[in-house]
Amino acid sequence: MGRRVVVIGGDAAGGSAASQAKKRRPDLDVVVFERGRATSYSACGIPYWISGTVEDEAALIARTPEQHRAAGIDVRMRTEVVGIDLDRRVVSWRELDGGGEGTEPYDDLVYATGSVPMRPPVPGMDADGVYGVQVLDDGVALRAELDGGGVQRVVVVGGGYIGLEIAEACRVRGLDVTVVDRSATPVGTFDPDIGAFVADAVRAEGIELVLSDGVSAIDVGDDGRARAVRTASGRVLPADLVVLGLGVRPDVRLAREAGIPLGTSGGVAVDAGMRTQVPGVWAAGDCVESRHRLSGQRMVVALGTHANKQGRVAGINIGGGYATFPGVIGTAITKVCDLEVARTGLSSAEATAAGYRFVTASVDSTTKAGYFPGAAPIRVKMIAERRSGQLLGAQVVGREGSAKRIDALAICVWNEMGVDEVLSLDLSYAPPFSPVWDPVLITARKALEAVEADARQL
Amino acid sequence: MGRRVVVIGGDAAGGSAASQAKKRRPDLDVVVFERGRATSYSACGIPYWISGTVEDEAALIARTPEQHRAAGIDVRMRTEVVGIDLDRRVVSWRELDGGGEGTEPYDDLVYATGSVPMRPPVPGMDADGVYGVQVLDDGVALRAELDGGGVQRVVVVGGGYIGLEIAEACRVRGLDVTVVDRSATPVGTFDPDIGAFVADAVRAEGIELVLSDGVSAIDVGDDGRARAVRTASGRVLPADLVVLGLGVRPDVRLAREAGIPLGTSGGVAVDAGMRTQVPGVWAAGDCVESRHRLSGQRMVVALGTHANKQGRVAGINIGGGYATFPGVIGTAITKVCDLEVARTGLSSAEATAAGYRFVTASVDSTTKAGYFPGAAPIRVKMIAERRSGQLLGAQVVGREGSAKRIDALAICVWNEMGVDEVLSLDLSYAPPFSPVWDPVLITARKALEAVEADARQL
Repeated sequence: MGRRVVVIGGDAAGGSAASQAKKRRPDLDVVVFERGRATSYSACGIPYWISGTVEDEAALIARTPEQHRAAGIDVRMRTEVVGIDLDRRVVSWRELDGGGEGTEPYDDLVYATGSVPMRPPVPGMDADGVYGVQVLDDGVALRAELDGGGVQRVVVVGGGYIGLEIAEACRVRGLDVTVVDRSATPVGTFDPDIGAFVADAVRAEGIELVLSDGVSAIDVGDDGRARAVRTASGRVLPADLVVLGLGVRPDVRLAREAGIPLGTSGGVAVDAGMRTQVPGVWAAGDCVESRHRLSGQRMVVALGTHANKQGRVAGINIGGGYATFPGVIGTAITKVCDLEVARTGLSSAEATAAGYRFVTASVDSTTKAGYFPGAAPIRVKMIAERRSGQLLGAQVVGREGSAKRIDALAICVWNEMGVDEVLSLDLSYAPPFSPVWDPVLITARKALEAVEADARQL
Repeated sequence: MGRRVVVIGGDAAGGSAASQAKKRRPDLDVVVFERGRATSYSACGIPYWISGTVEDEAALIARTPEQHRAAGIDVRMRTEVVGIDLDRRVVSWRELDGGGEGTEPYDDLVYATGSVPMRPPVPGMDADGVYGVQVLDDGVALRAELDGGGVQRVVVVGGGYIGLEIAEACRVRGLDVTVVDRSATPVGTFDPDIGAFVADAVRAEGIELVLSDGVSAIDVGDDGRARAVRTASGRVLPADLVVLGLGVRPDVRLAREAGIPLGTSGGVAVDAGMRTQVPGVWAAGDCVESRHRLSGQRMVVALGTHANKQGRVAGINIGGGYATFPGVIGTAITKVCDLEVARTGLSSAEATAAGYRFVTASVDSTTKAGYFPGAAPIRVKMIAERRSGQLLGAQVVGREGSAKRIDALAICVWNEMGVDEVLSLDLSYAPPFSPVWDPVLITARKALEAVEADARQL
């Protein structure tokens, strides 16, 4: 028997790790255990499939089990790993359909179990009709229920990215949708002034927003199904269906049981090469913690793009190459109805928590030259460290053509640029694409003025 | 009399310099001489006004003479500076309407004369009906002629940015348009494989492209008007109107006559603060040369965004503040019919000329997740230094939503990042905005593979 790589989880991280390792070293025996019915799919695309924006479920799948097998990877579908014996280097598995079980030895193990939706510890949370939307099978179940026609009132618990995307998908399908969130504005990772734009856009779409209010219980009917959501303030929101949009936590149960060390954030601790602290055991994707390059803190960021990169890094290293994952800076983007919104680096609250003191600057501009047809409104906000002027974070909100500008800002943050240098950047300009001063540059100018005004008071 | 700033030229650079200086030091006497009929306008918008995409000429004007005057700036319209006496610190001027003339003393002089269209030294080039489109008054004259209704056949000499934009504008107006260019592909600042996409798009719009052919003469009728363009290969292209799209050269006549030193590229030589080598004389905009941050060479880049930045820098320094213009990296963007195309850093030819050896990588991807409605094709090309992998340049071509991605690449080039780090960047991802591996990141992966494959041969 050749050298054997066992991968737990066949989505973005696990699938990438398996592919890269096998590609680099075809002599490896690579076995992937996947609990669900799909491999290497776009979890981020699920809301758009539920809404009907994306018509075909198959479109979400980047690589099927058959494609993995054609590449020489042994994929075991609907098979759950139930235990890891680190001393014997063996995993135990069982088939979810049919009940077969067994063990599999490994030389290298890739832990890529992903994440699970957060469930508030309130009564009724495990009732029928309460859905998390984390894996494709969740989405399939949710869509089947919506297609069944018995659902008219949907309550989404939590107004984060996934919560709002699912809320919009349900609204597009003509349902009555209410979103409950404990914060004063949805998507709490944005500064409140940016979040306020999101709240307006959500409401304009006919979605009810219940803010500054948490969920205290879910009322369950005699049939065992959720029928209403009760909030801390005493509201009762009737629901034919409840969707969890509170975010996710890393699925570390198996790792904890086996003794693979976790980090301070609760994710599996890994080094830059995606090695855990156990020799021969690697981890990647939503289940690991990453280093935030600005705050220096370890954090779990569940995002397909990181999962793909981390899986690639693990796979290259297992295959004898060299690659590293250099950390994250908190970039995120979403579309809320017609509103595009994105962030990178530290928000105001995160910057404060990380010990930075800063000034902010916000500018309203247009995505194209103001006189050009289709010029859409865009607001850019920057957070710059006092005195140094280092760009700590940025947020963008606006209409079509706004949010992808966050990438430019992300690269400025990544390179620890000061706003004085940012305003001098040689960015592209032509009237169909930008005002002569791109909104990014105008905001840097204003941020520099704020830094200078602040410095005079120091 | 207070300290006096004289500005020659009231468009982007001169207007910005005047505004900033006056804003910083309201006690300054600021006088702006402008030969034309407009101040602070968008020259880049002229093609879109000619096509009718932008309806109102006034929309192109960012700040009118009256607005400058309201800010306390003494703007002298239709007044040409005809000489500079550096020893006496005086400029001579004359009114283009009315014929008045005089002199104006200065403490600080800002030379912001802009550029003039290149005219090939061939017979007939000065005939009536031959237009450069450099200043707003050119555009006004050209549009008046087109509105007159006597023009059906337009020949554009030169397939650079402005040439193609004007060609498209004329085509949109229903005219027969031919573009003649000496290169094998239009927009010679792109690599030929990218230029080929541009050629296809131009032809698809019904514009005739005559490539690898230069202009040898312009036939002039008895009425003194151009009536055909003759090419080096012997073709005769009938023309009711000829437009020059060969690019521009800095307008340095006055500077040369006065003894303000020019640089090796032919533009006025300036330091990082936009000072010329003559004390008290500043320069900014299309007439100056800039430092290319990668090649180290001095070059003239006529672009409104640089002119605005440079004018701002000069004005801040004149006003007692501190600012610098840190150079350019050759970023440019344009829309050719439905095709978006952009570049940054060095092209393959420029990199070779600058002494670099490199590998290239091109990737075809989509602007959004491939399964998402509206996902458009995009090609990204990277030029990476051999061994180091430093990103030397990048080009993007594609449909809607493609070209502005060049800004992310520009900031990578600016920061001298290697493609190995680029591929790890924390760029934004959600299905409506990007595949899970953004095209920029995929291309960096492929470029890294090319660098590594090349290194094995070193």
